[in-house]
Amino acid sequence: MTGSHATSVLTTRLTKFFGIQHPIILAPMTPAAGGVLASAVSDAGALGLLGGGYGDRAWFEAETAKVTHPRVGCGFITWSVTPDVELFDRALAQRPTAMMLSFGDPASLGARVKKLGVHLICQVHTIEHAKRAIDIGADVIVAQGTEAGGHGFSVRSTMPFVPDVVDLCATRSPKTLVAAAGGIADGRGLAAALMLGADGVLMGTRFWATQEALIHEDAKARVVAASGDDTIRTTVYDVVRQRAWPFPYTGRLLRNKFVEEWHGREDELGKIQADQLQKVEAASVSGDHDTANVTVGEAIGLVRDLPTARELIDSVVAQAVNRLSASSDLIRTADASLRRVK
Amino acid sequence: MTGSHATSVLTTRLTKFFGIQHPIILAPMTPAAGGVLASAVSDAGALGLLGGGYGDRAWFEAETAKVTHPRVGCGFITWSVTPDVELFDRALAQRPTAMMLSFGDPASLGARVKKLGVHLICQVHTIEHAKRAIDIGADVIVAQGTEAGGHGFSVRSTMPFVPDVVDLCATRSPKTLVAAAGGIADGRGLAAALMLGADGVLMGTRFWATQEALIHEDAKARVVAASGDDTIRTTVYDVVRQRAWPFPYTGRLLRNKFVEEWHGREDELGKIQADQLQKVEAASVSGDHDTANVTVGEAIGLVRDLPTARELIDSVVAQAVNRLSASSDLIRTADASLRRVK
Ligand SMILES: Cc1cc2nc3c(=O)[nH]c(=O)nc-3n(C[C@H](O)[C@H](O)[C@H](O)COP(=O)(O)O)c2cc1C
Ligand SMILES: Cc1cc2nc3c(=O)[nH]c(=O)nc-3n(C[C@H](O)[C@H](O)[C@H](O)COP(=O)(O)O)c2cc1C
Repeated sequence: MTGSHATSVLTTRLTKFFGIQHPIILAPMTPAAGGVLASAVSDAGALGLLGGGYGDRAWFEAETAKVTHPRVGCGFITWSVTPDVELFDRALAQRPTAMMLSFGDPASLGARVKKLGVHLICQVHTIEHAKRAIDIGADVIVAQGTEAGGHGFSVRSTMPFVPDVVDLCATRSPKTLVAAAGGIADGRGLAAALMLGADGVLMGTRFWATQEALIHEDAKARVVAASGDDTIRTTVYDVVRQRAWPFPYTGRLLRNKFVEEWHGREDELGKIQADQLQKVEAASVSGDHDTANVTVGEAIGLVRDLPTARELIDSVVAQAVNRLSASSDLIRTADASLRRVK
Repeated sequence: MTGSHATSVLTTRLTKFFGIQHPIILAPMTPAAGGVLASAVSDAGALGLLGGGYGDRAWFEAETAKVTHPRVGCGFITWSVTPDVELFDRALAQRPTAMMLSFGDPASLGARVKKLGVHLICQVHTIEHAKRAIDIGADVIVAQGTEAGGHGFSVRSTMPFVPDVVDLCATRSPKTLVAAAGGIADGRGLAAALMLGADGVLMGTRFWATQEALIHEDAKARVVAASGDDTIRTTVYDVVRQRAWPFPYTGRLLRNKFVEEWHGREDELGKIQADQLQKVEAASVSGDHDTANVTVGEAIGLVRDLPTARELIDSVVAQAVNRLSASSDLIRTADASLRRVK
């Protein structure tokens, strides 16, 4: 580790494409990424995306009203938009800096995005998805590994998936940018993602644990104390909330009493869903996270504080710059006599 | 990417500890990592580990006889050694460069290793395992993510797990080295692992697909053609072979007809295990990999050729050096006017 580089930044194709200072994107988390967090992230030089989620109109409009930065985008859960494509179109009409589509075939909504000339970001979980995203003209592909918080697949992990997607783009569509997502929470993760060939990162869990995130303070405190071993992929809360996530989607979240009780017993849970929903909703309000969901990924192992979004971004970039700068210390000219160690 | 650095190498705590040239360890794969592969890896300046596996005495002795390099270690499947600790002790008595223990509590065998002053490597899948490995005095902890080929857990992925283990060691036992495993197949993965704070990497799948690996040529060809999306974690072959892997171990391997037929129907499979075992064993011999297992991880997405071990190691190191050297191109001094983008 060489000295501090407080005034150095990382410039990549992603920073140039969006005209931003840091190759970092805020995941459009439902409901953590409201207008205040998205604005704070953009204000700090990264790219804030507002969580459009399942298309809750009241929430989305209230949070849009809180956006104070001109360079903010948003993201929607593709399969859930169909019932209310009007909300989606209204979001688009405001010309967000980018529209991110996740979880489902992005072709039809993607066409609406491209038609208005809005930058299209597609989150993918497999190479097959990535091919589809290239075909429909995504500007940025977010390669999400299974360690990610929230919904996704369990087919790929970030470490091998990112270079795989990078190679696919290099072959099929060299101008398509790639952001790594899943398990990235500090400058080490950002530096690693850049070494894998990504143009930047998208972070969810780490931004979830910031001052500005719309998350109950008790949940944040629980996550700061938790181990990275304590998350699981499950559908129990989707069953309770009757979210029609298609197979094989699951959501990664913190294990708690509710998960321990119902994971593996989803059929039974489905039968008493209405009762349990009442319990879960009451628990969300009161801050009882033994029962309410705490949606975070494996990166919680690396989350040990609750900074502001700006403090976080500054420290992630400074650490990445430090790591990358120090890497030259590892490189030595090979001693010829060592080239064939016997 | 700056020019080639064919004569540069990477020096880390791991290379110094073992007196090797490259921070790369061959996974002690059963049965891919025989005496020829382990020797070739060590001969090329990395650390070869012979696959002790389930303790098949005839196999182990035959392969030990093929070792031609003085700096070779080996690895055993901890829970399976108990029936034949004599084989383990004989392996130890030969003073291998390192003994790697995976899959089960390493305390009792680890004590035997330490007593003889042999270097102890422990492979772990959770932070809890890593704490245990530190407590019993492991010299190197291999932090294995779920994307890895072969057996493991599905709790952690390499990207967030490695820095988590690195931080644990930094706090509890700074001299303990960390190697990253799971999904690493090229210089990008090696460079990324170093950025995450690892002292080196352990690679299985990528070495499986080399000339020297003891693997049927048809299986190798199938893997070169496969997508990184095509692997799965399952217990079907453990059921067929009556391997008593404790819960929650599963093995990652290539999806094939056999897996498609039986995954999720393990109880049924157990009932006709003897019949199916005959089929699987015949298929292994004849090279029918619709039925025989092809044990590889997600990194197959990055496997597109079948080099020799030396060619592979040279290219992984050269690419890692290139990536790390080129990283300085990403770093810019921040323009003060950009520090608060509005
Ligand atoms: C609380 C939470 C809510 C999320 N909600 C969404 C969402 O509504 N839409 C979406 O595209 N991704 C969502 N994600 C997934 C993120 O886009 C991203 O893939 C993930 O956070 C990256 O992994 P990380 O959590 O390890 O940083 C969510 C993630 C979290 C943690
Ligand atoms: C064919 C194969 C066999 C393996 N057998 C063993 C074994 O016997 N003992 C062991 O400790 N690990 C074994 N592993 C796991 C490796 O130690 C290592 O964790 C893994 O290969 C790393 O991930 P990668 O395959 O993506 O490189 C095996 C892996 C493969 C691919």
